[in-house]
Amino acid sequence: MPRRRLLGFAGAGAALAGAGAAAGALVGGAASSERVRPTGAEAVPFHGEHQAGITTPAQDRMHFVALDVTTDDRAELVDLLREWTAAARRMTAGQEAAEGGAVGGSPQAPPEDTGEALDLPASALTLTLGFGPSLFDHRFGLADRRPPKLVELPRFPSDDLDERRCGGDLCLQACANDPQVAVHAIRNLVRIGFGRVRVRWSQLGFGRTSSTSTSQSTPRNLFGFKDGTNNIKAEDADALREHVWVAPGDGPDWLVGGTYLVARRIRMHVEVWDRTSLAEQEAVVGRAKGTGAPLGQLAEFDPVDLHVKGAGGEYLVKEDAHVRLASAEHLGGVRILRRGYNFTDGTDGLGHLDAGLFFVCFNRDTGRQFVPMQMALSTKDRMMEYLEHTGSGHFAVPPGVREGGFWGDTLFEGRSGG
Amino acid sequence: MPRRRLLGFAGAGAALAGAGAAAGALVGGAASSERVRPTGAEAVPFHGEHQAGITTPAQDRMHFVALDVTTDDRAELVDLLREWTAAARRMTAGQEAAEGGAVGGSPQAPPEDTGEALDLPASALTLTLGFGPSLFDHRFGLADRRPPKLVELPRFPSDDLDERRCGGDLCLQACANDPQVAVHAIRNLVRIGFGRVRVRWSQLGFGRTSSTSTSQSTPRNLFGFKDGTNNIKAEDADALREHVWVAPGDGPDWLVGGTYLVARRIRMHVEVWDRTSLAEQEAVVGRAKGTGAPLGQLAEFDPVDLHVKGAGGEYLVKEDAHVRLASAEHLGGVRILRRGYNFTDGTDGLGHLDAGLFFVCFNRDTGRQFVPMQMALSTKDRMMEYLEHTGSGHFAVPPGVREGGFWGDTLFEGRSGG
Repeated sequence: MPRRRLLGFAGAGAALAGAGAAAGALVGGAASSERVRPTGAEAVPFHGEHQAGITTPAQDRMHFVALDVTTDDRAELVDLLREWTAAARRMTAGQEAAEGGAVGGSPQAPPEDTGEALDLPASALTLTLGFGPSLFDHRFGLADRRPPKLVELPRFPSDDLDERRCGGDLCLQACANDPQVAVHAIRNLVRIGFGRVRVRWSQLGFGRTSSTSTSQSTPRNLFGFKDGTNNIKAEDADALREHVWVAPGDGPDWLVGGTYLVARRIRMHVEVWDRTSLAEQEAVVGRAKGTGAPLGQLAEFDPVDLHVKGAGGEYLVKEDAHVRLASAEHLGGVRILRRGYNFTDGTDGLGHLDAGLFFVCFNRDTGRQFVPMQMALSTKDRMMEYLEHTGSGHFAVPPGVREGGFWGDTLFEGRSGG
Repeated sequence: MPRRRLLGFAGAGAALAGAGAAAGALVGGAASSERVRPTGAEAVPFHGEHQAGITTPAQDRMHFVALDVTTDDRAELVDLLREWTAAARRMTAGQEAAEGGAVGGSPQAPPEDTGEALDLPASALTLTLGFGPSLFDHRFGLADRRPPKLVELPRFPSDDLDERRCGGDLCLQACANDPQVAVHAIRNLVRIGFGRVRVRWSQLGFGRTSSTSTSQSTPRNLFGFKDGTNNIKAEDADALREHVWVAPGDGPDWLVGGTYLVARRIRMHVEVWDRTSLAEQEAVVGRAKGTGAPLGQLAEFDPVDLHVKGAGGEYLVKEDAHVRLASAEHLGGVRILRRGYNFTDGTDGLGHLDAGLFFVCFNRDTGRQFVPMQMALSTKDRMMEYLEHTGSGHFAVPPGVREGGFWGDTLFEGRSGG
């Protein structure tokens, strides 16, 4: 008998639940004992207090791009943000990037949409925009609006960053349950930006490694472990308020209701990991590989107990275990909202797969949340032996767009967010 | 109203149809007017006259790897093929790579499975093995068994090949409706081969660009056009016999029931394409972008008519249009079975996305099918202006594995295939 279970099949659930209301309802009824994802083919609202793509139940696929602005003209940049907003409104609703679309315009003009998503539904597409520290230099008159918390990330001890995968004036995160929809959205936004922005780096994520809703089962990373069990979930409003959303008084008013995004491309040396014993793997992580239960506990969602000891008096969750070092208890209450994806990018030229985790997190104060967490991990985490941080970015994510507004309008128009 | 239709949503259909028999049946009934894929989460049989992954309805995602054999010992290579076969049997059935799996073995030993597919169903995984020309050198005593038709591909006029993406002693194609299942399978096969093979190059394909069954709708490539409308379909046994499967008398007996796989990594300069007019795009392709109908026709599956002329006396399907040059009529009856995937691999460092089509085809005689077709395209096709062939491989695909047999046993044991 196969050991794998159907219940956790995120892809099936996602598509099932979204493949039309009638079918979805039937399936929901027929499969009520199964965990079915609440998202799938349907549209996720673009407007709101916060941008979508943060607490939205994590979609299955991602395309992320960091861009540099190539114009020095502030008005051109604002025009671009308006045009992007219009296109994002349409695409997240399952429409083409602009009126006319791929085939409805003049045959003598380039189409307004590139067309590869013509037959595809919205697929829960979300588009999330962020501003990098470099956007706040002399070019656009934004220097005095730079959030003090939009720090340059420190160099962590184990970093091995490739400058070609770092930074960016802007970032766009597209998440969807169909990768073609995510790739299409990024491509069309890049196309709209032609002459004003250029792609600095980009990353495709083939499978989510985080749950951001209690309705989702926990996926596995490429070390084979359930990842992000203790993630902040959309249903936990208190945790979101405390750890994710920028509040009045936190920093510039324009960022209230926004957050900070940290992206880290983490190469995982899976070939080395695969040659270590199960006991070593579980000791490194601090959880059982099968169930995901913290060591010393029985079930995945049992609380991590950092104090329980074995017969020999040693901690079951070792001092250098990943879950200990990343735990809120160890970090003085610090938590982050993780939203990363597994990736594979071909070969490293040495006979190994170039694969790993494209880590994305959202937090309210990167210097007090992600940075101390990563500093603890990069100096003490036994898992670092198997990891290599090869890319990095830090972005201020403005609040959600209101009807009639545009991405970043609170920054450029000097208004308050929130 | 959204222009996109739900009907063609391959991902939804795939998962719908496969997410358990009860749910699937209900959905099939409820959505009988929709095109629902016949594959999804279920298992595709591994054994058969031919390898799976060729006429199997094209799954949504792919991970492809080319490997070099690092041992010179024929017995070690045969052992590896036996071990791979055992693992492939299990994984295509939705099981872990070997008994014991990710958590069932000794805690002091590395697990037998890497674990990231533990919670996932078979997802229509197929694994397809091929032998490259270099396998038939002096190392393994196979020189006299090299199929004469396993030619080195000629250098096509527009090639811009990166040697790091070419060739390989072996190839493994994993296709599945969940990319995590495809990536897991390749990774575990590579792991089993540690010390005997090393990865030469690999490619992730995020979305299928071909239909290989009449039950599938035609997907779109990154030029936004329906691709592979006239592909050979699994239901057309005569065409498969004529154009795909190696027959007695074609070449070495061990390859009867097999075929030849050609892989080409085709970078598409989407930024340039996106700036051309709709009329130009349709002239280049020879089809309408929206419907996929051949120019001069009304519907996608209307036959291409190369002779119909416009008011000015010019051919509607121009002399340098892709569909004309690739047509069986133009090529003296030549056809191939296409099974390619859209890819995106980050950025080219010049501000553009590195994206395109990972072309995979199967044919009975590459020198008489793929080669003349690609020669016609690379010299005359107006589309070549927007394309760059950056990777290439040619592999002999042995026949299907029988119960108790192993991948390539007809080659190594000197038996007849078919």
